[in-house]
Amino acid sequence: MWPPFESGLVCYLKRMTPSIDELAQFACCLANASGDAIRPWFRTALNVDNKDHDRDSFDPVTEADKLAELTLRRLIHATYPRHGIVGEEHGQRVGDEPFTWVIDPIDGTRSFICGMLHWGTLIALNDGTRPILGILDQPITRERWIGRPGQATFAAAGAMEQTIRTRACPNLDAAVLTTTHPADHFTKAEADAFQSIAGRVRMTRYGGDCYAYGLLAMGLVDLVVESGLKAWDVQAIIPIVEGAGGLMTSWTGGDAQNGGRVVAAGDPQLHALALEVLCTVK
Amino acid sequence: MWPPFESGLVCYLKRMTPSIDELAQFACCLANASGDAIRPWFRTALNVDNKDHDRDSFDPVTEADKLAELTLRRLIHATYPRHGIVGEEHGQRVGDEPFTWVIDPIDGTRSFICGMLHWGTLIALNDGTRPILGILDQPITRERWIGRPGQATFAAAGAMEQTIRTRACPNLDAAVLTTTHPADHFTKAEADAFQSIAGRVRMTRYGGDCYAYGLLAMGLVDLVVESGLKAWDVQAIIPIVEGAGGLMTSWTGGDAQNGGRVVAAGDPQLHALALEVLCTVK
Repeated sequence: MWPPFESGLVCYLKRMTPSIDELAQFACCLANASGDAIRPWFRTALNVDNKDHDRDSFDPVTEADKLAELTLRRLIHATYPRHGIVGEEHGQRVGDEPFTWVIDPIDGTRSFICGMLHWGTLIALNDGTRPILGILDQPITRERWIGRPGQATFAAAGAMEQTIRTRACPNLDAAVLTTTHPADHFTKAEADAFQSIAGRVRMTRYGGDCYAYGLLAMGLVDLVVESGLKAWDVQAIIPIVEGAGGLMTSWTGGDAQNGGRVVAAGDPQLHALALEVLCTVK
Repeated sequence: MWPPFESGLVCYLKRMTPSIDELAQFACCLANASGDAIRPWFRTALNVDNKDHDRDSFDPVTEADKLAELTLRRLIHATYPRHGIVGEEHGQRVGDEPFTWVIDPIDGTRSFICGMLHWGTLIALNDGTRPILGILDQPITRERWIGRPGQATFAAAGAMEQTIRTRACPNLDAAVLTTTHPADHFTKAEADAFQSIAGRVRMTRYGGDCYAYGLLAMGLVDLVVESGLKAWDVQAIIPIVEGAGGLMTSWTGGDAQNGGRVVAAGDPQLHALALEVLCTVK
């Protein structure tokens, strides 16, 4: 078991609110622990459960996902016992303080079980009003994005952390658009709206899951449009996209932190153009 | 400049036919050189040309692609001056011997320019009748697949080469199906056939390019269905898929080496089921 994060205990004993630097450092410890739990399972024979017991809505949950979430929950509870926890596999634990950790060890389970690389571990800290800290970690390629107020960084395996920025792209016809899958989550009306935007952009790519938002924050993708998301799919992403200079909202321009229909853009002008199409969807 | 491969020159001077082991070793040198040429361009500001000068059929060609192909051509010519060369960017050089190298330094240029990871370098050697040697190399993640008669191997960064096999999957309803993009290359009739198969499988993933065939050879994906491919998109893949125990043919069950409509399956029974649908497409 990972040792408890000592300064967390000090805060607990002294009833101090931990600093954002300390919380970010702890979040990185969580990402490290999650990666250690996940790596042995990648590209091995997996026990894939189907949560829905329905072939048409295949939703695999792997041992790796469940084990990693338990690991993170234990670490959080041991370090910040008053913080709440929300995770995909093991539900919600209400805390005694406004801080809540919102975690998804494997976002992109379908890609994971096919041995693909565009998936990641999502770790967010919500201060009771919004996510203030987000980590997107790819434990196989050892890439890590960190978002916090006013800043986003990226570090590849063994390399220095670097500040990242979204790129300017004020028009749809120059934009690179992505979504995870054109049919998995979209209703007919949602798919029509997506295709209406896809028909006007330079290029559309599929298969990104959380990884696509990381590329957007680095200025390599301009627009991500998705629906059917949960809080744990988006809360870690919002500080990264916004810290890099982008915008991430619902399809009507509202708060994206509860998931649902979400649009992220690197350029605010592009975001406005996408909303013109998306906000009309019933 | 990479030094010429000495034993190649010996073969040239003595008019000997090089062994498959020597050719495989040289192909790995080519993959190393290609990776060295490509890596500095990944996730940097790229000069992206549009070969078609047409927004609707955006086909980016990067400096990385062109430079890497020139590097490989020089190495091949310096080592096996009588061998032919076919590449996407710089055309065909007819050789004085039946051997022809069929190369594509960046298969999956669209993924490459978005900073994604599912693309690769393809290097094949054709003996005048069929591809007998194939390499799929991902120079960023440093993963390499090698196919030769009766054998396919995979090596991840710093790890030992391991023999890989496709997995058994005799039925469509258990299969994982992939294609690079549901619209980029398919005609209406082709897209209908693809969707007819997609509607019967366990899961469909997009965005694979050559990488998806590597996953198929490792037993993580069961079926890849594509169209509009060129010789350099497929010749390196065929020895990998077949060396791992799979089948790769045209949609009518014929030779796939010239590209066009291609289907690869890990399990021959699944291949037969896919052909039943695909062979009817006009």
